[in-house]
Amino acid sequence: MATTAPITLQSVFELVREDLLAIEREFGDDTASDVQVITEIGEYLRNGGGKRIRPALLLLSAKLCGYEGQGAIRLGAVVEILHTATLVHDDIIDEAQMRRGRPSTNHQWGNSRCVLAGDWLYMQAFKLAVQERNFRILDVLIDLTQRMVEGELLQLEKLGRCISLDEHLELIHRKTACLFSVAMRLGGILGGVSAEEEERLAEYGRSLGMAFQIADDVLDLTATEDVLGKPVASDLREGKVTLPVIHVLEHCSTEERQKIEAVLRERAFNGFTHSDILAMLQRYGSVDAATRRAQEYAEAARQAICIFPDSEIKRALLWVPGFVVSREK
Amino acid sequence: MATTAPITLQSVFELVREDLLAIEREFGDDTASDVQVITEIGEYLRNGGGKRIRPALLLLSAKLCGYEGQGAIRLGAVVEILHTATLVHDDIIDEAQMRRGRPSTNHQWGNSRCVLAGDWLYMQAFKLAVQERNFRILDVLIDLTQRMVEGELLQLEKLGRCISLDEHLELIHRKTACLFSVAMRLGGILGGVSAEEEERLAEYGRSLGMAFQIADDVLDLTATEDVLGKPVASDLREGKVTLPVIHVLEHCSTEERQKIEAVLRERAFNGFTHSDILAMLQRYGSVDAATRRAQEYAEAARQAICIFPDSEIKRALLWVPGFVVSREK
Repeated sequence: MATTAPITLQSVFELVREDLLAIEREFGDDTASDVQVITEIGEYLRNGGGKRIRPALLLLSAKLCGYEGQGAIRLGAVVEILHTATLVHDDIIDEAQMRRGRPSTNHQWGNSRCVLAGDWLYMQAFKLAVQERNFRILDVLIDLTQRMVEGELLQLEKLGRCISLDEHLELIHRKTACLFSVAMRLGGILGGVSAEEEERLAEYGRSLGMAFQIADDVLDLTATEDVLGKPVASDLREGKVTLPVIHVLEHCSTEERQKIEAVLRERAFNGFTHSDILAMLQRYGSVDAATRRAQEYAEAARQAICIFPDSEIKRALLWVPGFVVSREK
Repeated sequence: MATTAPITLQSVFELVREDLLAIEREFGDDTASDVQVITEIGEYLRNGGGKRIRPALLLLSAKLCGYEGQGAIRLGAVVEILHTATLVHDDIIDEAQMRRGRPSTNHQWGNSRCVLAGDWLYMQAFKLAVQERNFRILDVLIDLTQRMVEGELLQLEKLGRCISLDEHLELIHRKTACLFSVAMRLGGILGGVSAEEEERLAEYGRSLGMAFQIADDVLDLTATEDVLGKPVASDLREGKVTLPVIHVLEHCSTEERQKIEAVLRERAFNGFTHSDILAMLQRYGSVDAATRRAQEYAEAARQAICIFPDSEIKRALLWVPGFVVSREK
């Protein structure tokens, strides 16, 4: 990437293209088992059109820290397999029909197989991670996994309720930002950077993850089913309030609040449509408010890595947060 | 335990009583989380009347190998927490209503929470195991967990079908014998024994686990609901054939075979009762045949540890297999 050329998503992925392909191969080898159904589910998941943003971040972070070894490929596969394992179990919990424009794995294989396939994937991620022979990395990954699982449990407890902003931010932190943060941190650990640099990388990942999830939650309300690969406003239908809806709830009338509460309670739009919700979001400027908050997190991410010297990789990492908040899918 | 006193279950547990109490405390601390529902489920499981046979084996194995450190307590908790995690997920898969005389966790908390609680327990087991700072132990535990999960998946594929003896033995190997084997092996690893001694310990655990599971499967058919803490013949109702039933199928008439196949297919006794099955087991000597096989495994377990010098612990380990095959609950 020439210094003067504009940065694009393609040019960022180009920086880690070979390594991402190697991760793809590793992911393939690693999800093949002598138990056929695991190989089948693994293949289905691998071909599911995941964006591979977590391994890409890990690779960029490792490169930023001057790391040249194979560990980044291995750990890139680990974070993607871990992410995939959480999706398999989350789909069971959400009773999801669709994921990324296709039938969800639980819909295709049934809950029982997917409980076990998720377990198997978790173990596969750790089997790979153990090969790095680095206890610190294992501590970080186990702590991460528990935080994500606890986040899902907390979300379950709050389903169907109008939760506070703080409660919501904790949920998306555990659900998304923790894994982004660990992906960046692992790059730093591989590169053997200082404790402060490692914290900066982790902070970048955390803030980027928050921005990413808020943008995702906005899209869930404003994009089309075609773009989302699942029904619009799935979050509300699953009883989950997200940032734009929390903003609406802070500003709307009692009558409007009751309508939203009914959707959350009944897990369905009965006599109150998706257009009605869009009109409310418009009326109170709630999409703009959520987007502004995502932009603040994007800025915090950029700030976090200001201490690293200028480089092609750093410029790419500085570009990513802005892209994440303005993306349309 | 005086050399001349008869060995009893109590006297065997007495040898590791203090350490088992320490494991109990560890298990308690380790399943407490700042997410309340995890602490609740953890407490429910801990008080569920588990026999703690896996940690007891690990402690005996470690003592046989002259190990004196705290690692056996930690790893004893690890094998019990791992075992518990598999039970939580298995109950979801089997749609169990009861476990050990109480409502199963999935019945009590719902499938979603139990998927996540199981995940959390798996991670908690590994979090503890990582503290041993021994990669070999992690390799063994991760390999074990995948084999157990694969075993459950294989069992799912075979549900409702009359499987062969070899298929069945593979399933109970993965389901039970692998964990028994690892519990014994970990004692050897902690004690720093030779490769041959470690294999002998693992072989003891494997054979004992096979004997244990066969005895369990016989009891499922012959004991009362009161003793089992769940309905009799649960295996058949779940579409699972076990050793005594495989023996019946090898000897019975076509008409009798069809009746058993109907139970497996319909997952219920329709016009063919539990007494009918007991009569068939009697007619073909199938309980005796299964018990003989359990006794062979018990003998193989005893043989496996013949190379260790005589000691109180060795005598206890030599006593356990005979107890396991003759127990009535």
